[in-house]
Amino acid sequence: MALTEESSNKIFGGYQKIFSHDSEEVGCKMRFGVYLPPQVEENKKLPVIYWLSGLTCSEANFVEKSGAQRYAAEYGIIIVNPDTSPRGLNIPGDSENWDFGVGAGFYVNATKEPWKKNYRMFSYITSELPKLINNNFPAAEGLQSIMGHSMGGHGALISALKNPGMYKSVSAFAPICNPSVCPWGIKSFTGYLGSEEASSWSEWDATQLVKKYNGPTLELLIDQGLEDNFLKSGQLLPENLIESCTSSKVPAILKKREGYNHSYYYIASFIGEHIKYHAEHLLSKKL
Amino acid sequence: MALTEESSNKIFGGYQKIFSHDSEEVGCKMRFGVYLPPQVEENKKLPVIYWLSGLTCSEANFVEKSGAQRYAAEYGIIIVNPDTSPRGLNIPGDSENWDFGVGAGFYVNATKEPWKKNYRMFSYITSELPKLINNNFPAAEGLQSIMGHSMGGHGALISALKNPGMYKSVSAFAPICNPSVCPWGIKSFTGYLGSEEASSWSEWDATQLVKKYNGPTLELLIDQGLEDNFLKSGQLLPENLIESCTSSKVPAILKKREGYNHSYYYIASFIGEHIKYHAEHLLSKKL
Repeated sequence: MALTEESSNKIFGGYQKIFSHDSEEVGCKMRFGVYLPPQVEENKKLPVIYWLSGLTCSEANFVEKSGAQRYAAEYGIIIVNPDTSPRGLNIPGDSENWDFGVGAGFYVNATKEPWKKNYRMFSYITSELPKLINNNFPAAEGLQSIMGHSMGGHGALISALKNPGMYKSVSAFAPICNPSVCPWGIKSFTGYLGSEEASSWSEWDATQLVKKYNGPTLELLIDQGLEDNFLKSGQLLPENLIESCTSSKVPAILKKREGYNHSYYYIASFIGEHIKYHAEHLLSKKL
Repeated sequence: MALTEESSNKIFGGYQKIFSHDSEEVGCKMRFGVYLPPQVEENKKLPVIYWLSGLTCSEANFVEKSGAQRYAAEYGIIIVNPDTSPRGLNIPGDSENWDFGVGAGFYVNATKEPWKKNYRMFSYITSELPKLINNNFPAAEGLQSIMGHSMGGHGALISALKNPGMYKSVSAFAPICNPSVCPWGIKSFTGYLGSEEASSWSEWDATQLVKKYNGPTLELLIDQGLEDNFLKSGQLLPENLIESCTSSKVPAILKKREGYNHSYYYIASFIGEHIKYHAEHLLSKKL
């Protein structure tokens, strides 16, 4: 599991790096970003936040546009952000749609042909990647949180809900909260998993998973811009998730942001608040 | 001089907008970014900082990657960032080089064919654009500063030095300080202005302009990453500018940044410090 450093740029006293490696889970070369804050020089083990990006993104968007490094440097936290799907495999049909296949792995483990061999992003982000990070960087094992945007918000929520205790905290910007009943989710679940009757979509749907969550108290921090066109077109459905949390007594916070849309301009505005939230959980203190 | 709003995104409580307009100076449609901080809602006139980008950039790079909006919102300052050259004119030879022609206007007024009709970026940024901004946005006339990066750092410096009193302050990230004697500058000055013997390169070179500056006290804030490959290859030459400032008794500050390169990762790390510097000059108070 050798890592190749693709780039390294000093930013806010630390280093934003991009690595590539041959992934066993998804069977191709994968790239991810890692921000190492200045505190790595103190030879301490540091907490890690994983960021999962949305449809069409690679590892570059978050690294270039979120402004997260400033806050990671402030709190002394490593941030890791993987790509959103396998790439370069040329599976028939993997590049015909912007919302399915390449750039749209949906953070599930596919069970249907021709996807099931490679489209295993869930295992990649919750198992292979954390091992790689813990083995190669000064990561404090067990001190990790997860967040994401849109499809990546869905990914963060299911990662936390399906792995009780694995993440100290979870947050999501404009997540796809109930993929089983929204167009993006129906398309990808049908493609990767098969029809709802023949498979178990509920195993990959945060709104469903909340109902059977059984583990350490986990609060869901949901952030949503109110001028988000995908909210208006029914792709995100945060109200379904909140209702499910309420009836299942899973704590949840929904932050509504007047005037903000679905873009990285919105993410940049509130990423500091989210990183602070995770830092408080990871460092077990009020900041 | 009608403006067309191309996009508008809420960020840090204000709006990052992109406009286009038909420019008289450069004879084509031009785009620029403008960040309107939340303070515009208080119906006050606000100071403006102009940002000039480097080679190959459009108006997009700064808007997406610098993280400047956070600081502009903090201090209540409008930030305007134009494109780096005329576009879409298809002048023979304008797209053969990344460091000449499109994306590389060098902020001069060309005097040589076929460039002299359109490559008038100096007049565009110091005359046409400020008028447009003052007429269309709540800009406090006379309260403006200028900054830039690389080729845009050169542009910021000559704009301030050639227009005494017009800008309250000037700063530059990794500027091309002495274009008359570096490869990028020699290439563009030869192309846009003609040979050094036949034209007056010194009128467009900060290191030369400093020697005859005669106006209100103007401090030059120069910022330079020490791992900048263009510094190492002699394109930037800050030492020449500082020497010229010292002998001409023009105040200058050179901030050397250990480990930083020429990228927006470097700019993002220190843009807050620069905006604070300009804000102190524009608002006439210590912040």
